[in-house]
Amino acid sequence: MSELLDKVNSPDDIKSFDVTELETLAREIRDLILRVVLEKGGHLSSNLGVVELTIALHYVFDFKKDRLILDVGHQCYAHKILTGRKNEFATLRTKGGIAGFPKREESIYDAANTGHSSTSASLACGMLRYGHDESQIVALIGDGAMTGGLIYEAFNDVKTIGKKFIAVINNNDMSISKNVGSVAEYLRDLDSVRQPFREYGIKYYGSVDGHNIAELIKAFKYARDCKNSIIINVHTQKGKGYEEAEKFPDKYHSYSPVRSEAGSFSACMGGKLLELAAKDKRVCAITAAMADGTGLEKIRSEYPAQFVDVGIAEEHALCMASGMAMSGAKPYFAVYSSFLQRAYDQVIHDMCLNDCAVTLCIDRAGFVPGDGETHQGVYDLSYLRSVNNMTVLAPKDFDELEDMLEWSANYFAPLAIRYPKYVPVHKYSVRTPFKAGSWEWLTNGGEDVVVLACGAVMNDFAMSVHDAVGGFDAVNARSVKPMDEELLKSIAGKKIITLEDNVLPGGFGSGVAEFYVTAGIAVPRMIIKAVDGKKLTQAKLGELMEMNGFTKERLIADIKELKR
Amino acid sequence: MSELLDKVNSPDDIKSFDVTELETLAREIRDLILRVVLEKGGHLSSNLGVVELTIALHYVFDFKKDRLILDVGHQCYAHKILTGRKNEFATLRTKGGIAGFPKREESIYDAANTGHSSTSASLACGMLRYGHDESQIVALIGDGAMTGGLIYEAFNDVKTIGKKFIAVINNNDMSISKNVGSVAEYLRDLDSVRQPFREYGIKYYGSVDGHNIAELIKAFKYARDCKNSIIINVHTQKGKGYEEAEKFPDKYHSYSPVRSEAGSFSACMGGKLLELAAKDKRVCAITAAMADGTGLEKIRSEYPAQFVDVGIAEEHALCMASGMAMSGAKPYFAVYSSFLQRAYDQVIHDMCLNDCAVTLCIDRAGFVPGDGETHQGVYDLSYLRSVNNMTVLAPKDFDELEDMLEWSANYFAPLAIRYPKYVPVHKYSVRTPFKAGSWEWLTNGGEDVVVLACGAVMNDFAMSVHDAVGGFDAVNARSVKPMDEELLKSIAGKKIITLEDNVLPGGFGSGVAEFYVTAGIAVPRMIIKAVDGKKLTQAKLGELMEMNGFTKERLIADIKELKR
Repeated sequence: MSELLDKVNSPDDIKSFDVTELETLAREIRDLILRVVLEKGGHLSSNLGVVELTIALHYVFDFKKDRLILDVGHQCYAHKILTGRKNEFATLRTKGGIAGFPKREESIYDAANTGHSSTSASLACGMLRYGHDESQIVALIGDGAMTGGLIYEAFNDVKTIGKKFIAVINNNDMSISKNVGSVAEYLRDLDSVRQPFREYGIKYYGSVDGHNIAELIKAFKYARDCKNSIIINVHTQKGKGYEEAEKFPDKYHSYSPVRSEAGSFSACMGGKLLELAAKDKRVCAITAAMADGTGLEKIRSEYPAQFVDVGIAEEHALCMASGMAMSGAKPYFAVYSSFLQRAYDQVIHDMCLNDCAVTLCIDRAGFVPGDGETHQGVYDLSYLRSVNNMTVLAPKDFDELEDMLEWSANYFAPLAIRYPKYVPVHKYSVRTPFKAGSWEWLTNGGEDVVVLACGAVMNDFAMSVHDAVGGFDAVNARSVKPMDEELLKSIAGKKIITLEDNVLPGGFGSGVAEFYVTAGIAVPRMIIKAVDGKKLTQAKLGELMEMNGFTKERLIADIKELKR
Repeated sequence: MSELLDKVNSPDDIKSFDVTELETLAREIRDLILRVVLEKGGHLSSNLGVVELTIALHYVFDFKKDRLILDVGHQCYAHKILTGRKNEFATLRTKGGIAGFPKREESIYDAANTGHSSTSASLACGMLRYGHDESQIVALIGDGAMTGGLIYEAFNDVKTIGKKFIAVINNNDMSISKNVGSVAEYLRDLDSVRQPFREYGIKYYGSVDGHNIAELIKAFKYARDCKNSIIINVHTQKGKGYEEAEKFPDKYHSYSPVRSEAGSFSACMGGKLLELAAKDKRVCAITAAMADGTGLEKIRSEYPAQFVDVGIAEEHALCMASGMAMSGAKPYFAVYSSFLQRAYDQVIHDMCLNDCAVTLCIDRAGFVPGDGETHQGVYDLSYLRSVNNMTVLAPKDFDELEDMLEWSANYFAPLAIRYPKYVPVHKYSVRTPFKAGSWEWLTNGGEDVVVLACGAVMNDFAMSVHDAVGGFDAVNARSVKPMDEELLKSIAGKKIITLEDNVLPGGFGSGVAEFYVTAGIAVPRMIIKAVDGKKLTQAKLGELMEMNGFTKERLIADIKELKR
């Protein structure tokens, strides 16, 4: 079935293939990707789009000594299959298996661990500056990543370095959603007569049909033998070779074989925000190329005047949102936790210092199972809690997210609401009216040990153990900043366990200890259960929970320990 | 002496002036700026360069309803003088006085509080999107800020918005140092025939002599009456009108009338790094347009091959440094604490996730007196301590900074060393060999209360009180992550006061509490003395210390309180 792929154990094995054989190989690789991803889940559209491109790169270059940097990195599947990982490819995105993103630990062919956008040209500049005088440095950059400002900071540096840099733009007219803005338009209309990157001292070649291997090889050989830094513009089709993905590339951007009917926090947020947008024209939903992933599809279609997609440009999204708020708007920026890191200075300098009424709707907070280290949303409680003027919330379930958003409509200061990729399973019997600084008891009180749980995953975990064994009380610590100081005072004589899907330093539990110290109250005996930054590989949620000590057995042992 | 300026209480008062009068006014404003800054200190070169430009903007536009956004904001002096603040201008950069940066609290003419680079176009996009249909939105952007990627994320959005945006590029060929890279070159060679910003849907007009008021007025009227978004390219001379500043614009970028002979942490770092660079060719010093401010002048001149200035582009600087480290280099990125916020995702995603041997030399950590809120370096302990793989250090004096840098030469993992704009005054009798995780006793031990001081300002503060009244022990807590766990265990039976020039949430004191909780040791009675995020205006160091509770009296009272 895979007569050619069977023979390929390293890129060296394809050097002797002719174009027809490489085309066959492309079909076989595409089949393997399709088979594995449709079964296991993963990034489908982007990977199907770059099969021929990846083969041609490995055919022309020698990435044992040359370096291939995959921007964002989610298009690495064909690369992994070609570089000795085809047999393990079925373990994609599973614990101990092949990562869905480049990983230096896996292979010398992976030049850098990447997962976020627009970093490849900067990494390339660093490699050009040091240690690779005999190598070719190639960055593969999607046109979506070309909207990220970091790329231009790097381009500005290329001429100064004075060494040769090759950028391959994978031009598929998509970020994750359809690509937006002037750059997208510009990239569509490039031509080599105008030499559009001349200002950066970079030659331009294109455009190349990204599914024509002969044409790709010719272009890459030209780039390899060229003396100048060069950009090769390759047109590809996202989802190529799988009809459904060709038609709906964003739907198949990140594919999961399990489709939940129970909704998601993203959908819940989008639904409630739609309602707020209908009632208040000041409300505006903002995304950085993730309208679908963050639940904003309906606002986009029903209230286009209250929807903004800035492309992959988180810094601009938040700075722009601050500008809107200064003018009286009520913007909501929906963003994944790990991508909000990109806009941290804008959180501090534009949003909070100017005391802007921007709400951050932080999706994929906490554990992000399959995507691995780069996508884990485990720092936000720490890096947001420290910022002056910021309020930080984490709902236990969909109802509470709705209550928080409803409350936010009349709150005019910096606000962050974080929630995970997780469908709550516990049916909570309480739904206390929400306000910032208010927590709620989930159990009757009276026990000696109180578990303070932050967010949906941790509340569900606490209640599942409570339902099984009891012996402690549970509190939904839904407002991380400010905390419920009255409640904390009331339990100062008890023992406390804090639960959070955030790292320990500076996180929720740390904040609880801070409260007692600051209030001059003896810190109760407490255990902070939090994420270990070293234990964040790709794995299932249950596995990540277990690796980080969130098991029923461990919690029972912790409670016993405190009761001693 | 200021016959025209005396009549100007708001920009409305200059509308009837003719060009000759405006020129006289420019001289009078320049005189006032020079007089105040040479006496009080402040940003001189940039402000002298934009006097005519600012007058012409206020002559043509009406910034009561139009909006003027000053990128970076340090060029706001003429603007402040023209907009009703001339009489208070002598209070510049002092507590309760006129801020050195735009402040919405001061005047309706200040559209946004700014202090960091390249945000103006994004803020403008936000204002265009909401609430300003009858207004003109003008962003004044230095060519230095044009190297920051955020500007291009915003430009990418302008055409989509479909409303008119005016950008005035203040082209003086400087960032703070001489501007670098292709963009600088490109901006020098712009011409209106080529319409260089056409891709962004933005018209180009220029270049204009930035010291010729008649020409400026003509250009700004053209921009005002134009239907399209437009960029006006204005050539100015930094330091204009003051010979010394014209000749040495970077020296006069940020001018201080008090010149210390005692050195600075910046100079100490630069000197030691020069030594390391001489011994090890892998060592490379990196700056984002701040070679002078961070002490790298000598490396730049003596080892140019081991020096990189990427322009104002902190994200690229750190991502590029990570690429260098992946190739075997030993890069040191010298950066101000508040500007490192801009590269937070690169800290997490590129530097630490890839476990790169990059060292952050974090200057202006802690209180930054005159510059005010935007420049305070009071978040770094919190936002760095949480990141996996990161080590965080803070020396008590110049010797210790040298010891840490010496130690770093053989440390190959992510590292941050933070130090303030401050000259230590205490003469320490101890100089314990440095290694990460080791603290040192500054006093003999035996007292009931132990003060754990983090960094130079806080160690000096602790020792000054100790020398005056005694009654406690002092420890130099020079390694914030990892902490000295043995020492912490050894004082678990005592009372503790922690001192840090960082905000409380997630900071050093918070980390001390975390340690005891995590180690299962009862948290000692302790007081965390840290910065209050709400008390960070421009003021002298002593005033900032006092506002934030760092006084001898308060510390004595705290010790007494703990001893009760």
